Amino acid sequence: MKNIVVLGAGFGGLTFCQHFEHPSASVTLIDRQNHHLFQPLLYQVASAGLSATDIAQPIRSILSDKPNLMVLMENVIAIHPDAKEVVLENRQLNYDYLVLALGCGTGYFGHPEWEPFAPGLKTLDDALRIRRQILFAFEKAETETDPAKREQLLTIVVIGGGPTGVELAGAFAELRSHVLARDFNHIDPTKARIILIEASARVLSHLPEHLSESTNEQLHKLGVEVRSNTRVKDITSQCVELTTGEMIHAENIIWAAGVAASPLTKKLGAELDRAGRVKVNPDLSLPNHPEVFAIGDIAFVLNEDGTQVPGVSPAAMQMARHVSGIIRDELNSPGSAGRPRFKYWDKGTMATIGRSAAVAKIKGFEFDGFFAWLAWLFIHLIFLVGFRNKISVLMSWAYSYFTYKRGSRIITGLQNEDAVEKLGDTF
Amino acid sequence: MKNIVVLGAGFGGLTFCQHFEHPSASVTLIDRQNHHLFQPLLYQVASAGLSATDIAQPIRSILSDKPNLMVLMENVIAIHPDAKEVVLENRQLNYDYLVLALGCGTGYFGHPEWEPFAPGLKTLDDALRIRRQILFAFEKAETETDPAKREQLLTIVVIGGGPTGVELAGAFAELRSHVLARDFNHIDPTKARIILIEASARVLSHLPEHLSESTNEQLHKLGVEVRSNTRVKDITSQCVELTTGEMIHAENIIWAAGVAASPLTKKLGAELDRAGRVKVNPDLSLPNHPEVFAIGDIAFVLNEDGTQVPGVSPAAMQMARHVSGIIRDELNSPGSAGRPRFKYWDKGTMATIGRSAAVAKIKGFEFDGFFAWLAWLFIHLIFLVGFRNKISVLMSWAYSYFTYKRGSRIITGLQNEDAVEKLGDTF
Repeated sequence: MKNIVVLGAGFGGLTFCQHFEHPSASVTLIDRQNHHLFQPLLYQVASAGLSATDIAQPIRSILSDKPNLMVLMENVIAIHPDAKEVVLENRQLNYDYLVLALGCGTGYFGHPEWEPFAPGLKTLDDALRIRRQILFAFEKAETETDPAKREQLLTIVVIGGGPTGVELAGAFAELRSHVLARDFNHIDPTKARIILIEASARVLSHLPEHLSESTNEQLHKLGVEVRSNTRVKDITSQCVELTTGEMIHAENIIWAAGVAASPLTKKLGAELDRAGRVKVNPDLSLPNHPEVFAIGDIAFVLNEDGTQVPGVSPAAMQMARHVSGIIRDELNSPGSAGRPRFKYWDKGTMATIGRSAAVAKIKGFEFDGFFAWLAWLFIHLIFLVGFRNKISVLMSWAYSYFTYKRGSRIITGLQNEDAVEKLGDTF
Repeated sequence: MKNIVVLGAGFGGLTFCQHFEHPSASVTLIDRQNHHLFQPLLYQVASAGLSATDIAQPIRSILSDKPNLMVLMENVIAIHPDAKEVVLENRQLNYDYLVLALGCGTGYFGHPEWEPFAPGLKTLDDALRIRRQILFAFEKAETETDPAKREQLLTIVVIGGGPTGVELAGAFAELRSHVLARDFNHIDPTKARIILIEASARVLSHLPEHLSESTNEQLHKLGVEVRSNTRVKDITSQCVELTTGEMIHAENIIWAAGVAASPLTKKLGAELDRAGRVKVNPDLSLPNHPEVFAIGDIAFVLNEDGTQVPGVSPAAMQMARHVSGIIRDELNSPGSAGRPRFKYWDKGTMATIGRSAAVAKIKGFEFDGFFAWLAWLFIHLIFLVGFRNKISVLMSWAYSYFTYKRGSRIITGLQNEDAVEKLGDTF
């Protein structure tokens, strides 16, 4: 019996486990969470559009029909490729094949000290914390008497004009203008400022220029202040300092500017890119370690034309199927030489900006506005894991689309450490 | 303009605000949460049947159509009846009428030191914490090698055989037997022990004896160990010591044995009962303070036959309407003497035990099993605040009823203080 160990139950790791099956192999899937997260919709949890359980599914129940598969909820401490072993908190696991699908966390370009002041959005806990603190900022503003402090409470800064940043800024703008607008007596939520900061010349720079412009216009309609060509010099508690020296005071600062691969990659002895991604062979295996594969966000892979495979879920799922095929073939005919090269099939890319607002580039077609939004909506619904979640998410969307209300505007966890820390003066 | 201040947005405070309206009065509703909680279903969040947002609704949006009403999310520090003022964190509020609807928290009969080891179930955070720790206990058991430790991880003790305790024990039993049963490789979740401890001779002692017996049978069918006439001597970390000297080792111990009124009642100078409830006049006002009313869980009220009005939501809503009527009449014709006495109309009482299992006593009728369960289901659905929540809850119920799966089995917040504390060795 061959042991195959898979680290991480994101799109890559989960797809591998769903596809791979071989009579003479047992698979162990390890993740420190008990759930698979549909990350493309995480920003909707952060902006109170969906509830946490809508976009998460217990890993065990997704894979419960799989024989020879074991799911462990544990932390990985270290990986020793030469000993072919993975070190967990209180034991080791040996493997014949290792699939690294650990994904990326938030990266601060060498400024880890910014993290406490500008949290990223990678886990459900991140999303719930951001939602809690933004909703609570409006509550505090309602009772705040000092105008300067009130303005700070009603300012949200999103750093990074990639898909996550754009989607967050748009969602916050709608939350503020449509959802919260009617509910307060002293403050006017529509006066809340949402500022999107992008270092480069334009947002969504991976898309054609005219789609970036369309994004700018659509964000502007929603009342988001888009500031491109703007660089952050420093971030301190509730304040962003720009390279121009300008200070922006904001109760909530969200970091969507960079990612960093799991620190475990450092211990692999393989070459890494700036973000800590593993530079793999064309077949996705590690140099000198044909039995170790890296897939998804954590792998640095080049297309034949020299461009980089993007860190998106379709790429991760395609890599998972590729590796699953290689391992199955080798188990069927041991010693067979020559592995196929991974080829990324670009299904297109899209970003949603708000209610009937989005941009999309699918195959040859580039479009924006309502139709891009519809396309986005259904594609995400189709890929959302779990029947129940689809219904429930569709319902939440329909509900907020037609009523302008949101079902998930619940502040919980105010007793939690992080909350108490941040809201210390009030609680 | 008269100022009416309402403390607490539970069933009592919320109902008052929905019913009361007067051109010459403005109402201020204060709660430390931003949401109204449908407490009767809280145990379903704790047992992963429903997600937090299903049973909570933002107070602001429930009352957004109310003129002259302000909602404040703040903590009440003190109440000074003689000065007619309420003290908040950073200011005072003066009132002409005060409605106390602060409800009850968990009470430990003079053993506050038990709280960290046996949390109660009163808030969404309580429910989410219990859910997190119970689901995580199964995850830890899956990787635990020491049999004794594994048995402890798979033991849940519920202390208190009232409705909450019975409903929790039943829900945990189903979670373990139907939902988790298929998902693990090493452990057999159906082997998990669920022990319900009740000090008195029978569970649900407020119901007729034969319904308690029926409850025992139905719990037994679900595999719950019901131990009545059993008293707790001491609770320490993951251990319950009985007066018999017997020690029960359990990873999860939940306290459902007692409630205690908000400590703010102590500062009112009014007479209190053992649980700290305020002994009010027949019109629900405080002795010597006709302008202060106590309603709901926090009020100790006697029926004309000398029996006590139970601390259930229908009673709280009836009291709210009663007080709303008194204040409206006095504003219409000031100086009018003679207030009506509050009369509690008992709509009946019921408790659910599990899938198609419940007991109910409605007017003359007493029934159990499937029909009691159906009645329970629809009555709770009808009273659940908010259209969207009703649909969503009904869906979750239908989903778990027909598929034996549960949608909310997501472990979040493992980084939180309390989690780290409890799961310290693993995280």
